Order: sequence, then structure tokens, then C-alpha cells
Amino acid sequence: MPELRQNPATKEWVIFAPERKRRPEDFREKFNLITQPSYKSECPFCLGNEHLTSEDLLYYQSKQKGQWDIRVVPNKYPALIPKGNFTRKNLSDFYRKMENALGSHEIIIETPIHNTILGLISDEHMKHILQLYKERYLSLCKAGYKLVTIFRNYGEAAGTSLEHPHSQIIATPIVPNSIRYPIEEAMRYYDDNGGCVYCDMINQELVAQERIVLQGRKFIVFEPFAARLPYETWIMPVSHAASFGSINSEEIDELAQFLNRILKIFYEKLNNPAYNYVIQSVPCNSEKNLFFHWSLVILPRLTKFAGFELGSGMKINHIFPEKCASILRDEI
Amino acid sequence: MPELRQNPATKEWVIFAPERKRRPEDFREKFNLITQPSYKSECPFCLGNEHLTSEDLLYYQSKQKGQWDIRVVPNKYPALIPKGNFTRKNLSDFYRKMENALGSHEIIIETPIHNTILGLISDEHMKHILQLYKERYLSLCKAGYKLVTIFRNYGEAAGTSLEHPHSQIIATPIVPNSIRYPIEEAMRYYDDNGGCVYCDMINQELVAQERIVLQGRKFIVFEPFAARLPYETWIMPVSHAASFGSINSEEIDELAQFLNRILKIFYEKLNNPAYNYVIQSVPCNSEKNLFFHWSLVILPRLTKFAGFELGSGMKINHIFPEKCASILRDEI
Repeated sequence: MPELRQNPATKEWVIFAPERKRRPEDFREKFNLITQPSYKSECPFCLGNEHLTSEDLLYYQSKQKGQWDIRVVPNKYPALIPKGNFTRKNLSDFYRKMENALGSHEIIIETPIHNTILGLISDEHMKHILQLYKERYLSLCKAGYKLVTIFRNYGEAAGTSLEHPHSQIIATPIVPNSIRYPIEEAMRYYDDNGGCVYCDMINQELVAQERIVLQGRKFIVFEPFAARLPYETWIMPVSHAASFGSINSEEIDELAQFLNRILKIFYEKLNNPAYNYVIQSVPCNSEKNLFFHWSLVILPRLTKFAGFELGSGMKINHIFPEKCASILRDEI
Repeated sequence: MPELRQNPATKEWVIFAPERKRRPEDFREKFNLITQPSYKSECPFCLGNEHLTSEDLLYYQSKQKGQWDIRVVPNKYPALIPKGNFTRKNLSDFYRKMENALGSHEIIIETPIHNTILGLISDEHMKHILQLYKERYLSLCKAGYKLVTIFRNYGEAAGTSLEHPHSQIIATPIVPNSIRYPIEEAMRYYDDNGGCVYCDMINQELVAQERIVLQGRKFIVFEPFAARLPYETWIMPVSHAASFGSINSEEIDELAQFLNRILKIFYEKLNNPAYNYVIQSVPCNSEKNLFFHWSLVILPRLTKFAGFELGSGMKINHIFPEKCASILRDEI
């Protein structure tokens, strides 16, 4: 029977219609298989082809002399560029725009090796990637941007145009309402209950246990109660923290381990699905926010958003998060 | 230079980064070509295969004896079914769900012919489809559902699983916040300005003319100022109307003509892109709403939503709506 579930933090409703697919096991076979890329000499992100990209903003030095392990470079085809201004312009008292909008669009080249993926790299290497995320996050907030979005597209269905392992960071001169709304909902919860709704969610999950995949000293990994997609996975700091920018090195260690383990299972046991992940954090200068809680959200792209999802904003999910969590736990 | 634009009705910001593609003409070549389907004897929606679907909820009789032109049937693989209840259940004082959630998921088989598409059918035929939309819309609201979403998925990238021309209707027992938020934004505008923001938008567009594609007695067709996607096209009644359910027969005539013309151009001149369209209307029993305005929104699926779009909710568009409107006007 169909079931509707509401995410208590965002108030989003999700339709669960498990009848549409027979068993979760059947679902796996539908996973989009991506052939693992081989080394490509023309790839701009490969070692030795540094002249094909812009100059490094930041890099992590390899133990091998003169070699890099991770590079951060400006995107050659940016959505926004760090030239311009923050000025809003009103047109005819009705429409509003920002011409020459100031922003930033960066690429984190995660490894010099073309034919590897996150999940197959070492925890140590993953740790350095997360450290660079943090450095860029703080720098971009300091530069005056209003929101810094760190994300990763893996596989064609997730919107990747380049195979070589990389993440992206976009810093925008505004905070979109898709970020404001969940913060407002969390604020209402705080006003009613005197606590962070995400902290309460973590406590509920720790009691229930049925949606938890991994539980550490610093983070929990779980499938949310109102998961919008099969195998949607949230990694959240157990203690309250609104901003990714406040992550410390002990936390980075555990996050690196957990993220690597989950992505390895996706690759090895779940037929290597396309996925996006995104670090959802408060806008810049809100790190002391008491009611919002940052997270790293992994969104496997096994289904397409069609007219209903685009029109109503509701998602239809075909598999319950309890089942996904159980499958993931079995693979760990 | 990148430009940010805000939709004054929804307050959504969109990033315009036209540098990412060279010219709008180049863009067209990237359109996803869909081979036109031929007749299929095993297709459940084809004439003569009626036994493969559930019984008609409604149909439009053909002039040919014993034949139908349009059928409305329950979806065989529904997201929601019209059995169950509207009861919310609170779990552990934190999570909320609706078990056996009452809803409806219907298919409009638009024609008995497998190898045609909307845009190639007659205006008269399109009119009958819209009339059936209206009848089902009103019936489902009357049955107590809270929101009725009428939508169409065309092409694989838009989430179609069946080639045979069809639309869908999903009636939900709740109003999702993705619908509430734009209504709230419109309410704030109304409180500030004393009028409907969409009515004001139409007036602005009629003055500016640069984004208008078609202009009739009853409807205007335009590319919105903050279009989220290339060739995103809105069809709106010129006079204030909050609910699609209040459309009259004269309006249906013009809407049928306009929708057919636009979809024909998409097919013949723009390389037949995958698209979704959705009728955005107020929730049921709100037809007298003074600040929201219904629309038929066409969303060509030429780009993929990736991590940034999913994480921030912002869209990156590569082509300005003024250019799209000009191209569409040239083709009419």
C-alpha cells in the first residue's frame, strides 16, 4: 500500500510506492552501469596536462617530488566568475537582476589518476580532499560570498561531463530560497521545541537503529525516514554544528573513512550507480546558527525526475529507507 | 558575463551563464533526438488492446462507430491508489506518515494512434484532451483530494516509460510545501501591492514584448524572465484565474491551439526535445484565490539537474529567454 512520509526538518512529503518495483533486489539490476574510465592523455585533469587548466588556487603536494595529489583550479567553463559585483538592479520596478554577478566556480581535481574513483582511494587521500574543501569553504565565505555549495557529480545520469575524478564548489552572491525555506522550517521547530530538529532526528535514529548504516564517535550515516530517492544517504555530525566550515581534523578523519566506505559499497556492491553528493551547510557567517545542522547528502540517480516531481516538488520513491539501510549494513 | 535573475513571483534566483555554450544555434544541435515510435501491437494504449489496461474512468467517443479518441484509465502501476484514508499518523512524537494514503493516479491515453505526438494532432483533438483534463480535475477535487497535478512526460530524458502518447494525473491527499511556498510568496506580494503578481507579470510582459511568443484574446505564451531551462515556456490565462478547474470552453479552444503550435515547433524546428509539461494550479477548493494564477509550464529537458541544482535548488541556464522567445517567434 502506498505510504506518505514527511521529513520533519524540511516538511517535505515523499510518496512511497513500493508496488511499482517488485523487490529491492530487482531494483539493483536497474542501476546504471558506468564503465570505469582508463587513462586519457587529452584529459585536462590528468597528471602532466596541467597546462590545459587554469593555475592552481590551492593544491595538495604529493610525497613524490614535484608531483601533486589534489589540485583546486578555477572552472574553465564557470557558471559564475570572481569578477563583478553584488549589486541588485531593479528593472521597471518589477523584475530584479544582478548583472556581472560576482561568484566563483572551482574544480577540485581529486587525484592525478584518471581511472580511479572516490571509494577506491585511501582514507588518507580522502581526508586531504575534505581538508581542501574546508579551506576553500572558509576562503570563499571570507571573500564575501553568501553561500558556498560543495558538490560532486558522478556518472552521466548525475550530470558529469568529465570522467576524471573531481568535485566542484560554487559560491553564489545570494542565498536561494531553496536554502532559506528549510532553515525557516528548522527555525519554527526550534521556536516550538527549543532544540535543533536535526539533533532530535539523530537522537530518534539512534534509538530506532533501523535506518542507521554506520555510527561513529563523530558522525552517523543513515537513510532518512522520508528519503526522496532509493539509497539516499545522509552523513551528519552527531554534535550540533550548522556550518561545514567548523569541522575539525578529528571529524575530518572519521568523515573521510565513512564517505569512502559508503562510496565503495555503492561501487562494488550496488552496481556502481551514478550519484550526486552535496554538502548542505548554512549560508556564510551563520556558523553559530542553533537550529540548522550541516550534512553531506548522497543522492544516487537511479530514477529520473519527471513532470510530477518538477511540477509538485514531491518525490516518488520505490523503496523504503529501512530496506536500503539493511542492505547497506549487510555489505559493510 | 554571468547574470542572476529573480523570478518576482516565486523569488527563485537563476544563474545565466551564456558563455558556457557558444551560440543559441549550437545549443539546438544538442537536442535529444527521439525516434518517432511506430505502431506496436503489444502496446497497452493502442486501439484493440484495451484489455491490457484497467477499465475507462472516462473516454471521448470517436466519430467512427465503436471507437474511442481519448481514454482516461487508472494507472496500472500507480504511485497512489483510491483506497485508503487521509489520516496522518505520528510516530514517536517526531516522525509523521500516512499509511494507506488515499490518492489517485490516472493515465490519459491521448489518441488511439501509437505513432503520433501532441503538436501533430488536430486542434479539435487537443481541445477534447483539455476538456477531459478539466473534467478529471474537477472530479478529483470533488472527491476530496487536496492537490491535482496534471502533467506530461515526453521522451526518455523526461521520464517516459511508454511511447504511446499519454498524460498523467496524480491527486494527492496533501499539499506539498513546494506548492505552498510559491503561494505564500504570491500572498506577500498581494499584501504589499494589492494585486496578483502573475497578473502584474503578464502586464509587464505585454509592455516589454521581448519574451512573448504568442498573444491571444485569452492566453499569452512567453518565456519567463528568470527561465530555469532553455525554452522554458509558460502559457497563462490573461485574466486572473487561480484554478485550472475554472477554464471555460472558449479558453480551452485557444489553449488547445497555442499548446499545439508550441509543441509542433518543438518537434519540427527544435529537433524534437524531450520535455515535461505541468499544469500549475492552486490546491483544490481555492479557486477564488486572488493572488495565485494558474499556468501550463513546458520544461524542455535539454540539460541535466546535477549536484548544484539538487543541493542549492538554483538552476544554471545557458540561454536567455529573450533569445529563445525570438527563435520561437521566428518559427511561428
